[in-house]
Amino acid sequence: MTGKLYGVGLGPGDPELLTLKALRILTSVPVIAWPAPEEGDSFARSIAAGHLPGGQVEIAIRVPMRVERFPAQEIYDRAAEEIAAHLDAGRDVAVLCEGDPFFYGSFMYLFERLAGHHETEIVPGVSSIMAAGAASGRPLSARNDVLTVIPGPLPDDEIAARIDASGAVAIMKVGRHFNRLRALIEKMNLTAQAVYAERVTLAGERVMPLAEVSGDTAPYFSIILIYKGAESWAKPAAQAEAQT
Amino acid sequence: MTGKLYGVGLGPGDPELLTLKALRILTSVPVIAWPAPEEGDSFARSIAAGHLPGGQVEIAIRVPMRVERFPAQEIYDRAAEEIAAHLDAGRDVAVLCEGDPFFYGSFMYLFERLAGHHETEIVPGVSSIMAAGAASGRPLSARNDVLTVIPGPLPDDEIAARIDASGAVAIMKVGRHFNRLRALIEKMNLTAQAVYAERVTLAGERVMPLAEVSGDTAPYFSIILIYKGAESWAKPAAQAEAQT
Repeated sequence: MTGKLYGVGLGPGDPELLTLKALRILTSVPVIAWPAPEEGDSFARSIAAGHLPGGQVEIAIRVPMRVERFPAQEIYDRAAEEIAAHLDAGRDVAVLCEGDPFFYGSFMYLFERLAGHHETEIVPGVSSIMAAGAASGRPLSARNDVLTVIPGPLPDDEIAARIDASGAVAIMKVGRHFNRLRALIEKMNLTAQAVYAERVTLAGERVMPLAEVSGDTAPYFSIILIYKGAESWAKPAAQAEAQT
Repeated sequence: MTGKLYGVGLGPGDPELLTLKALRILTSVPVIAWPAPEEGDSFARSIAAGHLPGGQVEIAIRVPMRVERFPAQEIYDRAAEEIAAHLDAGRDVAVLCEGDPFFYGSFMYLFERLAGHHETEIVPGVSSIMAAGAASGRPLSARNDVLTVIPGPLPDDEIAARIDASGAVAIMKVGRHFNRLRALIEKMNLTAQAVYAERVTLAGERVMPLAEVSGDTAPYFSIILIYKGAESWAKPAAQAEAQT
């Protein structure tokens, strides 16, 4: 009997947004693996930490955050080998994934190395765009809206064309592109319809009109939502109150 | 003290894909409300059914499925009044939502009627497109892919233009538009890259190449994914085996 590989979506950050299935798998497998920066803590592991039973083998997959070197093929090669050894020995392995494993997740680098040879199951999770929509107090997409999800690192002209053609927009991986994206949105005259969301569902969550963001940088996982159909974005008063 | 309104995302169908937060709220509020067709069972309630403690007040929001009459304003007016009466009396109310409450959900019709006057919280859920991606065995969006979510009821030329401009595509609400959408995708020469997903995460789940779907109709909640970057879609053998 060989082991099974799980890609487990943990949701956007609040440990209470784990699914029951994610919790069951996390607490029953003998081996977990999680992505982390070269130094420092793993965001994925921090979401799961309070639920872990202890005593599991843990595989840290440390990848330098410098975008130019991403994906770091050798690091994923080595992690895949380590995971495969456990699977071959009959041990199930759960890879912890922020948000949803197949939605802009680094799990794909392990999946493409392992799924051809090992039984694999993806456990979908609550994605950060759903969480940002929930926190923003306005439906992300409704009726027959087209929703376009755009990675922030794309060039200006491509982003502008996608925004032009869409009803609702979520820009992911804002991070170091924040200043450029803000200028682009301003140039497109959409600042009033834009919401900035950072650390959604976590302590220190910030959800505010894009126009009110001070500073020139944002964390990697921050998101900008644009509600093009709206005259302007404002959180309903009662909800704003509820969340303070 | 007035009550709090919760829009609770229940995920795509598998009761184990509820979040811990959804479960906590569902089992602690005195009043739940759920959408249902004019006659017959509520899909949302069926997802939650095994978790409900019993003894809760239940409000059925029965809306005719005929698209032309949707949204049925008077039905939502009445449901909002009934919910508001509970909130005013200090009772929390959870509205059960398939998938994610703010992602093409009918919860928006209650939200726009109630959130201005009542404390409201949205609990995001696993959306059906994440679940379809997970079941399809291929990352829905990776690296700097643009993902476009398109409602099936839109006209052909609009859908074609969105598909043309996107890297990955999810077409929602396929339902009675199935035949037209399949013909359009064939005309665009993308059938080999298209996956059909129905009843994802439920008993009777069907995930298959679009080319292999027989029949001319599909359930309302079915989804078509198009992986434009791929040569063709095929589920990794090991995963296909795992899921049978």
